[in-house]
Formats: sequence, C-alpha cells, structure tokens
Amino acid sequence: MGSAIALQGERAKKAARELAKLGAAARDGALSAIAEALLADTAAILEANARDFALARENGMRAALLDRLLLTEDRVKGVARGILDIAALPDPLGRSDGESSRPNGLRISARRVPLGVVAIIYEARPNVTADAAALCLKSGNAVILRGGKEAHNSNSALVETMRRALRESGLPEDAISLVADTSRESVGELMELTGTVDLLIPRGGAGLIKYVCENAKVPVVQTGVGNCHVYVEKTADLDKAAGIIFNAKCSRPSVCNAAETLLVDAEIAAEFLPKAKKLLDTKNTELRGCPETRKILPEISAASETDWGTEFLDYILAVKVVSGVGEAIEHIAKYGSGHSEAIITDSYAAASRFTDEIDAAAVYVNASTRFTDGGEFGLGAEIGISTQKTHARGPMGVEQLTSLKYVVHGSGQIR
Amino acid sequence: MGSAIALQGERAKKAARELAKLGAAARDGALSAIAEALLADTAAILEANARDFALARENGMRAALLDRLLLTEDRVKGVARGILDIAALPDPLGRSDGESSRPNGLRISARRVPLGVVAIIYEARPNVTADAAALCLKSGNAVILRGGKEAHNSNSALVETMRRALRESGLPEDAISLVADTSRESVGELMELTGTVDLLIPRGGAGLIKYVCENAKVPVVQTGVGNCHVYVEKTADLDKAAGIIFNAKCSRPSVCNAAETLLVDAEIAAEFLPKAKKLLDTKNTELRGCPETRKILPEISAASETDWGTEFLDYILAVKVVSGVGEAIEHIAKYGSGHSEAIITDSYAAASRFTDEIDAAAVYVNASTRFTDGGEFGLGAEIGISTQKTHARGPMGVEQLTSLKYVVHGSGQIR
Repeated sequence: MGSAIALQGERAKKAARELAKLGAAARDGALSAIAEALLADTAAILEANARDFALARENGMRAALLDRLLLTEDRVKGVARGILDIAALPDPLGRSDGESSRPNGLRISARRVPLGVVAIIYEARPNVTADAAALCLKSGNAVILRGGKEAHNSNSALVETMRRALRESGLPEDAISLVADTSRESVGELMELTGTVDLLIPRGGAGLIKYVCENAKVPVVQTGVGNCHVYVEKTADLDKAAGIIFNAKCSRPSVCNAAETLLVDAEIAAEFLPKAKKLLDTKNTELRGCPETRKILPEISAASETDWGTEFLDYILAVKVVSGVGEAIEHIAKYGSGHSEAIITDSYAAASRFTDEIDAAAVYVNASTRFTDGGEFGLGAEIGISTQKTHARGPMGVEQLTSLKYVVHGSGQIR
Repeated sequence: MGSAIALQGERAKKAARELAKLGAAARDGALSAIAEALLADTAAILEANARDFALARENGMRAALLDRLLLTEDRVKGVARGILDIAALPDPLGRSDGESSRPNGLRISARRVPLGVVAIIYEARPNVTADAAALCLKSGNAVILRGGKEAHNSNSALVETMRRALRESGLPEDAISLVADTSRESVGELMELTGTVDLLIPRGGAGLIKYVCENAKVPVVQTGVGNCHVYVEKTADLDKAAGIIFNAKCSRPSVCNAAETLLVDAEIAAEFLPKAKKLLDTKNTELRGCPETRKILPEISAASETDWGTEFLDYILAVKVVSGVGEAIEHIAKYGSGHSEAIITDSYAAASRFTDEIDAAAVYVNASTRFTDGGEFGLGAEIGISTQKTHARGPMGVEQLTSLKYVVHGSGQIR
C-alpha cells in the first residue's frame, strides 16, 4: 500500500512550504523550545528508552550497540545542548550568492533556500533523531525520520516532545515526523516518494546504504562507507606516525573515519612496523600483512585480496609495504572508498603529490583520519558524511541541507 | 554483457585521473586545438552528417527535428566558436573556498576538483556532442557521450576529431568517448556503472529522463522537464504582459523554458485575455481554458485536468483565471515542475510574495521564462538545466561540473 507513508510525505511537504516562509528567528526560537521541552520531558523519554534497552538486552544486542542505544539524564542534557548549539549557528538561508546584472538589464541572484523534505534512514541511535531533526529545522526543511526498530520507543517519545514544542511555537508539527512502520518495507516506500522527498540520506550498515543508493527513485546522498588509509612515507617522524595510526585505528574502530589499512614505505618499514605494532598491541589489534610486512612481523597473519577492500570497523588492520608515494596513491585509488586518506611525511613534494592526486572527501597531511566529522570541521554538527562527489562531499552540516533558487528581476524583457 | 561499456568506463576513469593533474593552461590549450581540428575536419564532419540527414529524412523525421540534426559549414564554425568561448571562461578548478584554522591547529580548506567521469545521454543533436565534451574538459572531467542513433555518424566524426586533437595536445584521448551502441541497452549499462560514473545527465524526452532518474544506480541530475507558468497579476502592464506570454509560449515552443500555462487575475481577465489571444493567434496557438476563461473567450476549447500538468512543447497554452497571487501560487505548487515561473506585476507585495513562495529553479518578475539558460545567465554554456534541488539547480555550467575535496594540513594531530 504505502499510503500511510505517502500521506506522511504529503503532510511533510505542506509543512516544508510553511517552514520556507519563516525567518531565522522563528526557526531558532522553535529549536530553543525543543531543547527546553526535551529537558522537561526527560523522565518520559528515559522511561521509553528503558523499554527499548530492556528488550534489546533480552534479544542479545552487543554491549557496544547497547551503549549507543542507552539514554541517561546526562545524555538527554547533551542532546538538548546540541540543539541549542545548532540554533546558535549562522542562518544558512536567505542570503544571495551575489547578484549579476545581465546586458539586457535582467538582475539575477541565487538565493539560498531549503531543500524541502529531507528523509533520513538510520540505525538504533536515538540521539540521531534529535540531531537530524534540529539540523533540518535549522535549515528550513521538514524531516521524515525512519529510525531503527530497536530504538522505536525512544524515538517516538523524542519526536512526540519535539512536535509538541513545534506546535507550542506556532510551527507546523509535521515539520518533524517519525515513520511508524519500522519494517524494511517502509524503507522501500520512502525511496519511491518522488515529488515529495527532495533528499534521502541513508545512514547505517554498508549493505543498507548500497541498497538505498542503487534503488531509490528520489535523490540520495551516499554516506559513510569509509575504507580509510594511513600512508607512512619514508621521511615521516616515525613516533608521530605510530601515534597517528594508533589513533586512526583504535580510538573508535566502529566509525567510518577509522583507518582500515596501513601503507608503509619499504625504506622505513623495518624500523616503523615494530614501533606501530607495539602501540596497536595495547588494544589487541589484529594485523594482516602483505608478504613484505610478514618478513618484518612474521607472527602476524597474511592479508587476503579481500582485506584490502574491507571496512573492518573493528580492531583489525591490513598492512602493506609500498615502494613510495606513487604505489600508495595507486593502492588507494584501487581500494579506497573516497572517504578519508592520510599521508605522514616530512617531504613537501610527497605531501603535495598526495593531496593533489588522492580522490577522497578528505585528504590529510600529518593528522589522523578520525577528524572527518562535522563538529571537528567546524560545521556545528553533521547529518552524515557524503562519500559521493555530487551535491555534497564530506561532512554535511546545515549548508549542505540547502539548495538555491534563481530570482530574476526584469522590466518586461523577452528573448 | 555490458563489458564494452564497462571497459570504456574504466578507460574514462583512467583519463579522468590524468586530467585531474592538469592545470588550466593544458585544458584550455586542448580546447583550442579541438576547435581548430573541428574547423579543419569540416568536410568529413559534414559528409557524415549528410548520411545521418539522408537516412533521417528517409525515415520520415519531422522538419523541426531534421533542422536540429543538420550541420552546415556555418554551424560547425559556430560549434568551434562555442568551444573557444568555453576555453575563455575562468578556470572552475583549483581555488579553495577559504581555509579555516581549527582550535587544534588543523588547517582545513575545500578545494574545487573535477567530478571525475560524467556521462551524458542525449537526443539527436550533434552540437550537444561538442558542447558537452568541451564543458567537461574545461572542468577537468572525462566524458562518456551516449548520443541518439539518428546522429551517430555525425557524433562519431565529431568525437574522432576531438580525440585526435586531445592526442596531439598530449592529453589522454579517452577523456572524450562516444558509446558505440546506440540501443536502449547501452543506457541501462551506463546507469549501472557505480564506482566509475560520478554523474549521469539524461537529456531528452520526459520519459527517458524519468526512467533514468528512477532506475540509475549512479548519481543523476534530473534535467529539463519544464511545465512553466506566466501569471499576470492585476496590477500588470497588460501590453508588456501580453508580449511576455507571447514570447514565453511562441518564441520556441519545443524547449523546456517555454510557458505551458497562463494564469490571469479575474479582475483584469476580460481586458487582458483578448489582448493576449490576438498576439497568440498570430502563431495559431491553441488555447485551452478554464470555465471562467471561456466566458471571456467562448471560442476556445476547455482545458482538462491533464492539461494543467502537461508540458505541451507545442503551440498549445492552457489558460486559467485565478482570484489573486495566492491562488496562482497554489496552482503552480500543485502542477509546476519546479523549472521557471514568472509573475507580471507592478505590485511590490505581489512580486515579493511570488519570489518568496514559489519553489522553482528560476522565479521571474516581469520577464519571460525563456531566459532560463546557461548563456543567458552568463555561465557561458550549459550541459543541462537541473530541476532537482540537490547538487545543482537551474542551468548547469562548468561550476556545476565540479566537486570539492577537503585538504587538511596538520602537524601530528590525533583525536
């Protein structure tokens, strides 16, 4: 049928038209009201979350995922603070990217406007519900949230509170709505809402993202698949390099900006690899090496062809010895996912060549790939990290949730 | 199989990596060489075109389409001049959209880079072959051209000349290539080249565009479906308004920025409609009116519900009497395709409300919708007119064929 979601889409579209008429003060005021309402409703939100949590534990959810599902009083406070931070960002709407005057007297300007209706499909993290809603409201978009079923009670409570705050602020409550149906079917229905959904953002596992990107009829931004590399060039400060690969791999292995493969110049491999391994061993990181790597670290297992293309999202690191920056660039071109790539070097030429030739959302010199993040990039927050080259690339903040329209003023011109 | 197109895609991707390393001088030099080579090869190009033309005429192609297929010595000169104009545009690549320094000392800049591989599916117009290739080369992209079979001899001759000019300029010839297979299957294969095609642009009939947008696995920009409106508000200068609707409808009815529906305020309908009809009659334009319109112009036929949503692309105009700017905006929101919409008015309030509330790529006050065009907007040329809100909206020039990459310079930062 799909009629429930189609109707929800229609209501969101109507709300989007109302939102588009509002100034920044009204949107920011509503964000403040939402933050306040979430604090006021903390008890009800925690109660709903406790039901999700109990059920998920009963169903054997892993500890790391349970922790992402859990809300506490402090975490709700954090969510509310995050919304106020988003409210405090500069207004992404309304300004014109310069006005040009054409020879025929037409004056043309490109005005920043909302996209309209943004739909987001995401995993069992209730904080995404509030973040995504706030980013969309800040940028004048209506949002349709399709969260995971494991967090459905929490999401329902959060959305109910946010909708009440919208109503009380005089804004259309349908600017924020949650898809009631958490089955796979509702994903398919959202993907087909052409003419209603202006942008669909899938977040979650690589399989879901690929499925949505390849099958959606509405515009999609591909997010978050990160097969990231750290390349240690022969002139690198090896202690810094070891610190960076340890951070890129181990500070949070489950995220998309974590490193999955270490590339090391042959000239320094014998000195560097044991140094890096010592740090990585502190987190029991499993290394999988190429033949050259295993001559230096014979105790580690062999990397398979599949390993070079795998986003492990775990304490596993593929390791390859390369002849220099050229081979490193070729390897990344072949296996990388265009997310984040780093070179550790003291060579100006190597750094320039790497930043010029690597085709990725973010290219780092002497820093960890872990910085690819809306907050770290100064965008305030992010709704996802785009790994495609159209519409947006890298962390997507409120600017990336806007479009433009050309406004043309004339005095009777014809062509 | 699809292997021929997959291989072509791989070669284009390799060429794109080479192109990305070139400066503007090399790209602009190659464009000049291409323009020169096209002039030098005019005889061979016209001979190939003559074969297409003879076959098309034999097969009963309509005169208007035959004219679009035809190349003449003057038209080849025009194509070459167009390429030199594109060469003379500012380089869209390389510059950074500001560098920010983060509290941890990271320096982040967003550098303009090519998209990579652009594929374009288009109708039987050989000039598009050269225009699209030139726009892609200017913006550092490799292009895969999938032209219509009616122009295949012409396209082959043009592409052969362009590839020779690339080789002679020391650039990879695979930066420009033509799909040999002009069957519908090759469209399907291009749509599936994930990881190779960074952007697919379908141009042509509404059916083809819808099919590609809804079924492609690669990123697509929806172009060129234009159900455009001209709304004559009660304070309009009625002579100017009549001139504008006549221009918007009749100057070139087959293009996407032509008007399809006229909306007229009730207060001035009795005075305006006969005036407009007199002009439209000079081109034998068929009017299809709402009941109120037919009270004033009883000789015209009745508009059906379907007519309001139809892109006629012909000398046919739907006409509706409305109560004011609010009803006009509602009508356009319901039936418009988000391309180009115009208000003719002398009211500041009506103009402001129309430009604020209409959701379209281009919104006009007192000018014809026919100006929505890359050349008219000062972009030099266009590869299509986007009617979606992501990536690009409105006429797409060389800027809209670029992406960005974040280049991050550090000194050992970890997170």
